[in-house]
Amino acid sequence: MESRYDRGLRKLGEIDGEQGERIVAGLADIAPDFAHYLIEFPFGDIYARPSLDLRMREIATVAALTAMGTALPQLEVHIHGALNVGCSRAEITEVIMQMAVFAGFPAALNGLAAAKTVFAERASE
Amino acid sequence: MESRYDRGLRKLGEIDGEQGERIVAGLADIAPDFAHYLIEFPFGDIYARPSLDLRMREIATVAALTAMGTALPQLEVHIHGALNVGCSRAEITEVIMQMAVFAGFPAALNGLAAAKTVFAERASE
Amino acid sequence: MESRYDRGLRKLGEIDGEQGERIVAGLADIAPDFAHYLIEFPFGDIYARPSLDLRMREIATVAALTAMGTALPQLEVHIHGALNVGCSRAEITEVIMQMAVFAGFPAALNGLAAAKTVFAERASE
Amino acid sequence: MESRYDRGLRKLGEIDGEQGERIVAGLADIAPDFAHYLIEFPFGDIYARPSLDLRMREIATVAALTAMGTALPQLEVHIHGALNVGCSRAEITEVIMQMAVFAGFPAALNGLAAAKTVFAERASE
Amino acid sequence: MESRYDRGLRKLGEIDGEQGERIVAGLADIAPDFAHYLIEFPFGDIYARPSLDLRMREIATVAALTAMGTALPQLEVHIHGALNVGCSRAEITEVIMQMAVFAGFPAALNGLAAAKTVFAERASE
Amino acid sequence: MESRYDRGLRKLGEIDGEQGERIVAGLADIAPDFAHYLIEFPFGDIYARPSLDLRMREIATVAALTAMGTALPQLEVHIHGALNVGCSRAEITEVIMQMAVFAGFPAALNGLAAAKTVFAERASE
Repeated sequence: MESRYDRGLRKLGEIDGEQGERIVAGLADIAPDFAHYLIEFPFGDIYARPSLDLRMREIATVAALTAMGTALPQLEVHIHGALNVGCSRAEITEVIMQMAVFAGFPAALNGLAAAKTVFAERASE
Repeated sequence: MESRYDRGLRKLGEIDGEQGERIVAGLADIAPDFAHYLIEFPFGDIYARPSLDLRMREIATVAALTAMGTALPQLEVHIHGALNVGCSRAEITEVIMQMAVFAGFPAALNGLAAAKTVFAERASE
Repeated sequence: MESRYDRGLRKLGEIDGEQGERIVAGLADIAPDFAHYLIEFPFGDIYARPSLDLRMREIATVAALTAMGTALPQLEVHIHGALNVGCSRAEITEVIMQMAVFAGFPAALNGLAAAKTVFAERASE
Repeated sequence: MESRYDRGLRKLGEIDGEQGERIVAGLADIAPDFAHYLIEFPFGDIYARPSLDLRMREIATVAALTAMGTALPQLEVHIHGALNVGCSRAEITEVIMQMAVFAGFPAALNGLAAAKTVFAERASE
Repeated sequence: MESRYDRGLRKLGEIDGEQGERIVAGLADIAPDFAHYLIEFPFGDIYARPSLDLRMREIATVAALTAMGTALPQLEVHIHGALNVGCSRAEITEVIMQMAVFAGFPAALNGLAAAKTVFAERASE
Repeated sequence: MESRYDRGLRKLGEIDGEQGERIVAGLADIAPDFAHYLIEFPFGDIYARPSLDLRMREIATVAALTAMGTALPQLEVHIHGALNVGCSRAEITEVIMQMAVFAGFPAALNGLAAAKTVFAERASE
């Protein structure tokens, strides 16, 4: 049977690609155990569950991180993730705009700025 | 051409049904203009846009309101809304559970309690 | 010279009247020192400063507590406070509605519900 | 009759001047419709309402954005806005200081840092 | 070797006693898997780590939940938890008061109200 | 008798050392009175109280600021503070990791990044 860690690593790869690896590497010298938990619980347990496909999950995450407004670096990672699992730019922009309703215009504006950064990064690759 | 208000009223009906009417009625004596804005901007402008279907929009809203943790009455309304537009109980429960990753376990627990209340209300109808 | 405590008590009386006394009384058995700090710093130091009048201060407080969405009991106290220092119901309703722009519609709806409660309490006196 | 868009553009000009234009321009390639909504709802609908003057509105916005702590770029824009509509530096500093009471000292310190940045920008013009 | 689940159940028992069991039971019909995650990650992984004793952990949790202001039911559970692992009422009251500095007076007042409820529950047992 | 200001300055020195002085100096030209309040209430009143030692207080503050996610500059100051009063790097890292449970993984990741910055600053001195 695939371990939680291996399943999480596989899911993280599908969603965040190199971004995920960089986060894990960044934790190596300060909290290597936390890198394990990050792979196991969010990706090995939650994202691996069958009831919601990855596109829906990433739309939900982009919505939540935009609304919270306290996690811009993670929002950028998950905008990449949403694109990686097949969401279109239009869908991502749309869900961020919708957050103006629930969390206010500044949250949506900061979310759109994050999307702009990510879209530009991918265009330049 | 359908006005923003009429389009919003139609969308609000699709999503929130009677719940939406009750919110609008509750604003009548204190801020009737606000009921107009509520129908026009969130529902007439945003929810009426074509790039994202209503199921995706309600999943995003349930995610955001669960993560924010400051809008439990509205979360209940939108759990009803998600069911009204065709999301399953499993999908709603799933996206709320996912918020434990991004906003912590208390946010997810309070979201699950809201879902439990809504599911019970509908079972008893 | 008037002490910080006496000046704070006087300001608290102007703004919150009996509401303020009830909060202080509620702290007596659990954290009596905190009641002192509450009178001294917010009211004796900050609210007593001359550069902003009490109407402006209470509008600012109603705006902030509505936007934060984590302090509904205190929002009700300061809606009373805003009325006590001369703000009109229209001004209070207006500033709460404005928060839909900055903190989202749920924050404004919950703020309007608080205002409705307070206005009804005062009508019934 | 003036459209919501035209009225919003006029209000945005009164409050944010060039800052507002820059925000709208920044949305052109990613979410041009959102620039429309931003002009229409916040400025054409809400800020254009008569019950509260623009000085009060900007004090309320500076208070809310300081307390939320998730919208520093927008806080800087609205500190400019508060100055543009006639608030004094002392009033702005005062309302930010007051937020230490309601949202804690870090929120107020970060708000004062934003004010310092804005005041320096205007001094250097 | 003790499984994550068994270790988590043991830790949860030490900290939350019956409160923890009630939360797990409340999840049985809506999200039984989430009860598993709740036992495994927070209690089996994090709380079971050796570098911080349970008193420190519960003081940190009470601080965080008070400051966040979005999780009052969980704050009550962890005030019980803090008492269960040996924190004194004075220590709990003290850390909640301290949050006035970092998250504002309303957060601290709501935290003290939660403490008052918990202390009364235990006195009446 | 030592004044609140002198007692606060002494406490601030114990906890934040030069960091505290820099914050106070930064307020001199924009809000010098606020520097006084910052020394008097948080440090002269709260931190000077006997019921909780400084190690516990700093662990609580690091927990709260990590969970809030809106005060990264202050989080860095208090990670320095925690080290200054005798907390180990392991204890600080541990409490930040714990916040993943209560405020989500992004809050903990941003907290760990702040810790990494602070630990590197001290290593290079």
